[in-house]
Amino acid sequence: MTGPDDGRRGGLSRRRLLGALGVGTAGVLAGGAAGGALGRATADDAAGAPAPSPTDAVPFHGAHQAGIVTPAQDRLHFVALDVTTDSRDELVQLLRDWTAAARRMTAGQDAGEVGAVAGERYAPPDDTGEAIGLPPSGLTITVGFGPTLFTTADGVDRFGLAARRPAPLVELPAFPGDQLDPAISGGDLCLQACANDPQVAVHAVRNLVRIGAGVVSVRWSQLGFGRTSSTSTGQDTPRNLFGFKDGTANLKAENGSALDRFVWVGDDVEGTAAEWLRGGSYLVTRRIRMLVEPWDSSSLDEQQRTIGRTKGSGAPLGQRAEFDPVDFTTQVDGEFAVPETSHVFLAHPTNSGTAILRRGYSFVDGSDGLGRLDAGLFFIAFQRDPATGFVQVQRNLRLDAMNEYVRHTSSAVFACPPGVRDADDWWGRALFG
Amino acid sequence: MTGPDDGRRGGLSRRRLLGALGVGTAGVLAGGAAGGALGRATADDAAGAPAPSPTDAVPFHGAHQAGIVTPAQDRLHFVALDVTTDSRDELVQLLRDWTAAARRMTAGQDAGEVGAVAGERYAPPDDTGEAIGLPPSGLTITVGFGPTLFTTADGVDRFGLAARRPAPLVELPAFPGDQLDPAISGGDLCLQACANDPQVAVHAVRNLVRIGAGVVSVRWSQLGFGRTSSTSTGQDTPRNLFGFKDGTANLKAENGSALDRFVWVGDDVEGTAAEWLRGGSYLVTRRIRMLVEPWDSSSLDEQQRTIGRTKGSGAPLGQRAEFDPVDFTTQVDGEFAVPETSHVFLAHPTNSGTAILRRGYSFVDGSDGLGRLDAGLFFIAFQRDPATGFVQVQRNLRLDAMNEYVRHTSSAVFACPPGVRDADDWWGRALFG
Repeated sequence: MTGPDDGRRGGLSRRRLLGALGVGTAGVLAGGAAGGALGRATADDAAGAPAPSPTDAVPFHGAHQAGIVTPAQDRLHFVALDVTTDSRDELVQLLRDWTAAARRMTAGQDAGEVGAVAGERYAPPDDTGEAIGLPPSGLTITVGFGPTLFTTADGVDRFGLAARRPAPLVELPAFPGDQLDPAISGGDLCLQACANDPQVAVHAVRNLVRIGAGVVSVRWSQLGFGRTSSTSTGQDTPRNLFGFKDGTANLKAENGSALDRFVWVGDDVEGTAAEWLRGGSYLVTRRIRMLVEPWDSSSLDEQQRTIGRTKGSGAPLGQRAEFDPVDFTTQVDGEFAVPETSHVFLAHPTNSGTAILRRGYSFVDGSDGLGRLDAGLFFIAFQRDPATGFVQVQRNLRLDAMNEYVRHTSSAVFACPPGVRDADDWWGRALFG
Repeated sequence: MTGPDDGRRGGLSRRRLLGALGVGTAGVLAGGAAGGALGRATADDAAGAPAPSPTDAVPFHGAHQAGIVTPAQDRLHFVALDVTTDSRDELVQLLRDWTAAARRMTAGQDAGEVGAVAGERYAPPDDTGEAIGLPPSGLTITVGFGPTLFTTADGVDRFGLAARRPAPLVELPAFPGDQLDPAISGGDLCLQACANDPQVAVHAVRNLVRIGAGVVSVRWSQLGFGRTSSTSTGQDTPRNLFGFKDGTANLKAENGSALDRFVWVGDDVEGTAAEWLRGGSYLVTRRIRMLVEPWDSSSLDEQQRTIGRTKGSGAPLGQRAEFDPVDFTTQVDGEFAVPETSHVFLAHPTNSGTAILRRGYSFVDGSDGLGRLDAGLFFIAFQRDPATGFVQVQRNLRLDAMNEYVRHTSSAVFACPPGVRDADDWWGRALFG
């Protein structure tokens, strides 16, 4: 599956990345500086930040939406919705109402002012009640706008937004091996609810769906039971359902300048259709079924060479510790220690030439009718532009040895507006205002 | 929906129950003693038991299987399996192998002796690795045997067990309103994994399925993200997806004599086909879709009269606090405070004439293709006999006002053997030995 190759893409790709980062090749090879800057902040970066309690509230207001660089919470409920109204006013009102409810719920309050158990005896409560007594639990709610909100596949300008569609917000291209189910792909809108208590995440989505009755309907929904990425240097690296540490080299909240380069839509959109998106980001989701049965039948060696890391410590092959820099030049027994078809080799910023902020979750959705668990990774990535983010990485994974063990069954892309600044602001104001 | 009724079943049913409990009617009405004994232990019962940490191990060996009266853990992975081999020996070996792996995993160890990251480089690991570094997290694994393991629908004695099928182990009868999907019902075997970390529960099921390759295959699988019952007086009562506290009057671990009466198969099976099951219990599962959209559109009054409790405190209607005894005689404004079509009225031991130990979990399984979340309760109940347990309760719920808001979509029943006594014992030894 692997072997010496004088034409290894490592050198070329490294140069591409380093150009983007403005770092010289020597720096990378000598000390892993670029990989380090992307994958792991220094001890200094993390020192000043006290770890919040898992039950605390995450601030809702800010320049960016919470739920992107927020240290990844343990549980996820993600929902994609279709807008069922033709009324722009109704859509705008919903976004205002959603913002108000999200502001309240992320603070640990009921979705509405009346609450779950007060108010008119003969009126429906304005909160469904299952989170009564539960703390904020780190809840974040992140909203995104899909390409079809701007223009339908037939070119219809549904809400007068066609001229404001950012050029990068287009359906993802097809990739070899895709087995996408349209029923669980796409969507006009999305809501990502992350929390350290699944009941809090489910409660948030359920109440936002309730508030949207008559304006939106659920297109698809995905629960994730466990995070598979760290997005902060203060977090341990979790393990995915292949049993490997995942996200060691992920972008992290502490990587300020790298976030500006790779995650946040920046000042260069000024005067363009995407200006409303400045401070926002693009969200890509992929439901990735993991074929755990063949994986579990493969040898430890095969697994490690597929990933490019050791299963125990998570160290890159040929290195000793998880955060040791990936060295694409070391040879062991005449072969490169990190096979060039390994996932780490191909996905690593050094070789993919870019970086994305991953924020995915493991799922088990029952069984598949063929005697197997329907399990995998609900992949979530944030990036400044899907074309130079996920699409570029995924294209580089064309020969990934891991492809044998995964199937992409759902796909979606959304533009996530910037954060809600204050009590008068609302999701999408810059877009609709 | 409700009204004064001279023939209310409360009195009669109370007498039935009290006969079963050997308690006089006066005692109940005066102090709620019987209801109290079933639904809530006294302070004395709970005093001596220090609450274990959610990360601790639950002992695997014992007279009864863990995962029944064990204080309900937060997360569930339940799987039903079909046996694909015709070999009794292979089935017995699997039960031995499962027992060994469960003994290890509940102690926080890898599924096998070699583990996830050691042993032969070119052999598959004997653990899948995603739980490396995670504590035992209260993991319990409970096994059950379905009716089809003993005799197929065609009457075939697959494994020489037909003569040992306990008479109560038969498919559940059909109930009005059932919308069961056979693909997610039944099963030759089941494994219930409960833990306070979902990754630990998923890891346990996944490894037991892996060990069963070639002998069993997954029939259906269900994740539960949050417990909806307390099974110990030391636990807070959780809320279900209707937003109400659930399981206030549940049987609890501290109700020793009631457990012997209602949960554990007892000495009276001596000399019968069910003798091997002494110390075990019957497990009934029902996947109950909750129609949250109409529920969320109903008034607080309607919701409370449907349940029979207040949404805030969980107090029975007409009472003040959650654990106040349910009083089926109090009238408010000329109507009974607890409507006789309310769920609490009909399900309460006083009126159903029996008691079951509920151990269910909330689920959200994506969406239903009609714009709605596919959410609900994965109901689990343990009882000494399904006929006088779940079936009796469910029949009494025929006029339950809650039926408007729920649909049963899957059903299964299993006989759970007694506990594994020691290191030489294994699940089902008394059945197969």
